[in-house]
Amino acid sequence: MSEARIAEQLGFLAEIDALKSVVRQSPLADRSRRENSAEHSWHLAMFALVLSDDEAVDTAHVIKLLLVHDIVEIDAGDAPIHGNHDSQAVEARENAAAERLFGLLPDDQAATFAGLWREFEAAETPEARFAKTLDRLQPLLLNTLTDGGTWTENRVTEREVHERYGPTIERGSPALWRHAKALVRRHFADSGAQR
Amino acid sequence: MSEARIAEQLGFLAEIDALKSVVRQSPLADRSRRENSAEHSWHLAMFALVLSDDEAVDTAHVIKLLLVHDIVEIDAGDAPIHGNHDSQAVEARENAAAERLFGLLPDDQAATFAGLWREFEAAETPEARFAKTLDRLQPLLLNTLTDGGTWTENRVTEREVHERYGPTIERGSPALWRHAKALVRRHFADSGAQR
Ligand SMILES: [Ca+2]
Repeated sequence: MSEARIAEQLGFLAEIDALKSVVRQSPLADRSRRENSAEHSWHLAMFALVLSDDEAVDTAHVIKLLLVHDIVEIDAGDAPIHGNHDSQAVEARENAAAERLFGLLPDDQAATFAGLWREFEAAETPEARFAKTLDRLQPLLLNTLTDGGTWTENRVTEREVHERYGPTIERGSPALWRHAKALVRRHFADSGAQR
Repeated sequence: MSEARIAEQLGFLAEIDALKSVVRQSPLADRSRRENSAEHSWHLAMFALVLSDDEAVDTAHVIKLLLVHDIVEIDAGDAPIHGNHDSQAVEARENAAAERLFGLLPDDQAATFAGLWREFEAAETPEARFAKTLDRLQPLLLNTLTDGGTWTENRVTEREVHERYGPTIERGSPALWRHAKALVRRHFADSGAQR
């Protein structure tokens, strides 16, 4: 490795430290604070390592997609699932973020990392679909562990949970959606919240 | 996947959410707070993805080792590099933690994950050595970005930095130690801190 290459790589790694300061809506399981996007990305990579054992996907590739998928939020911010967004504006911000942030890397790696991010966003490969499944399943699990978490805060109904989480989770893993749906059912039954 | 298997897997994934609350000594690059072990693990996985391109290691395996390497801290706590530890007591606590935490997984996965953790600790495979290199390089980088970080707090000299970081970083990557040593030199030259 040349000195110049290492310097660019460490420059990128220093810059993405900022993902630790992007705060998401989801609570931690112990409700002490909200989750940030860096620790969320670690948690998702662990979801992939644990849950992809029976799935027909390349686990290592799913993990790479998940490690990289939120880096654009450093410039573009997190777009919460329970909220209205101008999706064109979000897309434009995220594209600019990808260009600036991955552009800090040596050219060959800039292309590779931007490619991973675009693959995740497109959700067409089996690995990207499964990564999207996990990105929806993880906050669902946190909500069921915290008396409804963001659902309670935003008065989200069981039907809306099905609409907002179901298609993405089921597309990557029918088995995980079957299980998740049962957790959701139990939460709404126990809480007496609106269905 | 059977329902019972998924239930065990999600139980483990809920339990390890607690790694987000294990606080390390290292500051974030923007000095807003100290780093936690979950976001540290994400950052290290990104170091592996970026820096292993020229190294003769299986990148995906390095990433798996790094994702798992700190999970025992949920029960055993973080053992800071600049401090005195009873290493036998630390080892006993970490072994008990590994047994309890990985034991939450289905048996086959419990063995796999405990194996990844032991491989990292033993630092004998090329992947484990490189993972250890990154685990030392990342806090070194954060310290150089924050006017010395934990070195300044603990009055660590340049010579002590060489002793405490050098062998582990160099063993996994002479090129990265050469680069890191130059960053350390520049920090101590600029700060006028004791060599
Ligand atoms: Ca996300």
